[in-house]
Amino acid sequence: MLYLELDGNGARYAQVARALKRAILHGQLKPGARLPATRVLAAGLGVSRNTVLTAYEMLCAERLASAAVGSGTFVTASIAPARAPSARSAVAPQSRYAARLRRLPALPLRSGVPRLRFDLQYGEPLVDPPLASAWRRALARAATRSDWRYPPSAGHRALREAICEYLARRRGVVCGADDVCVVSGTQQAVSLLARVLLDEGDSVVVEEPGYALALQAFQAHGARLIPVPTDAQGLRVESLPRGAVRLIHVSPSHQFPSGAVMSLERRLALLDSAARRRCWIVEDDYDGEFRYDSTAIPALRSLDIHERVIYVGTFSKVLFPVLRLGYVVCPAGLRDDLVAAKMLDDVACGGIEQAALTELMRSGAFDRHLRRASVELRRRRAALLEGLSRHCAKHLTVNDSRAGMHMVGWLPGWSGQ
Amino acid sequence: MLYLELDGNGARYAQVARALKRAILHGQLKPGARLPATRVLAAGLGVSRNTVLTAYEMLCAERLASAAVGSGTFVTASIAPARAPSARSAVAPQSRYAARLRRLPALPLRSGVPRLRFDLQYGEPLVDPPLASAWRRALARAATRSDWRYPPSAGHRALREAICEYLARRRGVVCGADDVCVVSGTQQAVSLLARVLLDEGDSVVVEEPGYALALQAFQAHGARLIPVPTDAQGLRVESLPRGAVRLIHVSPSHQFPSGAVMSLERRLALLDSAARRRCWIVEDDYDGEFRYDSTAIPALRSLDIHERVIYVGTFSKVLFPVLRLGYVVCPAGLRDDLVAAKMLDDVACGGIEQAALTELMRSGAFDRHLRRASVELRRRRAALLEGLSRHCAKHLTVNDSRAGMHMVGWLPGWSGQ
Repeated sequence: MLYLELDGNGARYAQVARALKRAILHGQLKPGARLPATRVLAAGLGVSRNTVLTAYEMLCAERLASAAVGSGTFVTASIAPARAPSARSAVAPQSRYAARLRRLPALPLRSGVPRLRFDLQYGEPLVDPPLASAWRRALARAATRSDWRYPPSAGHRALREAICEYLARRRGVVCGADDVCVVSGTQQAVSLLARVLLDEGDSVVVEEPGYALALQAFQAHGARLIPVPTDAQGLRVESLPRGAVRLIHVSPSHQFPSGAVMSLERRLALLDSAARRRCWIVEDDYDGEFRYDSTAIPALRSLDIHERVIYVGTFSKVLFPVLRLGYVVCPAGLRDDLVAAKMLDDVACGGIEQAALTELMRSGAFDRHLRRASVELRRRRAALLEGLSRHCAKHLTVNDSRAGMHMVGWLPGWSGQ
Repeated sequence: MLYLELDGNGARYAQVARALKRAILHGQLKPGARLPATRVLAAGLGVSRNTVLTAYEMLCAERLASAAVGSGTFVTASIAPARAPSARSAVAPQSRYAARLRRLPALPLRSGVPRLRFDLQYGEPLVDPPLASAWRRALARAATRSDWRYPPSAGHRALREAICEYLARRRGVVCGADDVCVVSGTQQAVSLLARVLLDEGDSVVVEEPGYALALQAFQAHGARLIPVPTDAQGLRVESLPRGAVRLIHVSPSHQFPSGAVMSLERRLALLDSAARRRCWIVEDDYDGEFRYDSTAIPALRSLDIHERVIYVGTFSKVLFPVLRLGYVVCPAGLRDDLVAAKMLDDVACGGIEQAALTELMRSGAFDRHLRRASVELRRRRAALLEGLSRHCAKHLTVNDSRAGMHMVGWLPGWSGQ
């Protein structure tokens, strides 16, 4: 008698067919063997005879069996006899990349620096009803007018133009649509740039402490991370290592997690150092949109006369993280490599959301949202500062850089700089 | 006299400010130097004095200059003296990956095989008004109910469940939501799998001829491609190389470009060979949805008792390419690595489109579209075959595998097998 176990997924006849298929593949039922009489199998499994008949028909349709009129159903003779399964391989690290993935710490902050204790969930999206409905309308219009074919790998030209206009107006970064590659956020920017710029073992300077997910992308790619400390003025440029460095990753607008805004002097010194070393700077303009004083410090990209800066931005913070769209502004010599890497990575970003975002930026709805968000963030910031000064003045030293969507407080005994 | 060139982008005052910034950064204006009197510069540039005043204010706000009451505006003294720009580096290949990118052929088909001459644009999306409006409604509802935070890297659980239900019902692939990772299409699946499974120099068997973009992702990653010929039954398993192979990439449902459907015997032989070699099979279920005869050949994944098959699918062909969503069904031992690689690559796929697709699949609109598409494809197919037999019977031998969204015709003198 044939022992079959049903897996309980979906229709009964499909379960019976799968169980028979397993029996054939595992060699329980040999090539050329006759399948049990349908009545017998139905009784054994406690199913109707029709269920078994349908299962046999499925096996025949899949060519695993064939029916000979009057004499029953037989396992296809040409099926190679099944071999004993190899001892279930323990699926060891599949590649050096996978091995490095497995060594990454689960915690966002590495040891060696004081861990932040007051993590008042930063970067929560400010999606108010006007933004939600503007986005809904923009999506619906984009789905109406959409071209349904693959979008270009560099992104829709109209979106790249809207990004240029935004960058020139609000971030002081002047570039053309051809300098921009649309990506699905900062993370993809970093991971594409790692591929295009770095070989295994290359050195990458990162901020200490820094934004773990970007750092881990470099690490997984096989780069050697060189952490350089930050203080209230951002990366300590004078602490850069003497040896070869291929790339420096910084977030000068509002460093994560320290909140530091890199001073102009540091920016110029960093650019000078990169030009002398001939290494690349990846400027992650993280949380650079919102400032609460009058001082606008120019982006590294806007100060860069040696074309060493690759500027990276995202809509995760200024709109919402569920939208996976960002951009890279890169020197002309890198552009083709970056777009080719994007094409091989995932062809292109989704075209309907690209079209919707273009419409949001062109219609003024994006600017109106930025103004509302700025008012709301000021209000939240004032409330937080007032509460902290009223209740925690003795216990907490606040590092206030007057920028961005988070701030850092230090408990007594922990050094904040 | 100071010579300034305006770049013509945006407002005049911003152009003047940028030109002055360039002059400071290039060392034309030294640290501590006095900026020209506003009247003089305004006259020289042919702009109003207010334009120059605003530009000076911008420089002061950016800390590149400061105003001393009554005596003018001065370049900030602490700005490090600019150095002569390094001879503009020719931006040589930035990494081995970039060097490989640059060596990839621009053409989709490689030399060594006859090129297809009758490329009747395959895979055009069948977006009819009912699908377009169902998608628009689903998007609008998803944007209403959306969680605006980062989606999970493996994809929304509800979408993974809907994919499992679809795969079990229409593709004979039985799996659980935990076995599925949502990706942004076949290309990302291949590129993540290359990272997780392959080191530079590892051997990958690919179909000859094959789908160029997937092959190029392996090549760019540094894999050594071993092309194995295909015939009317798909990959010639008996031609697999004797040496070590790490991965075999096949599209058994409807091979691109030959259109071959891999026979059951070949499928079983391939699985057996992979189990003995302990290598992985990436089953790209390209164009597997539409069949025009009654025979359903089981997916490799459904025949695989040794857990060597990684099953890859996409919504590009069954819905439309502008939607960048697909999925990987992988053995348990690979899952965590794959999801970690996805996280480091781009965090996650866009959440609103994930939610909209879930709704489309749950509501039945997706199934209705598949039925309409199947009818329309049959109609187009019949029209094409009729036209070919009426007008080209002498000149064209059609390889008809009764599946998918393209077919291949061979001109006399070109060999089809």
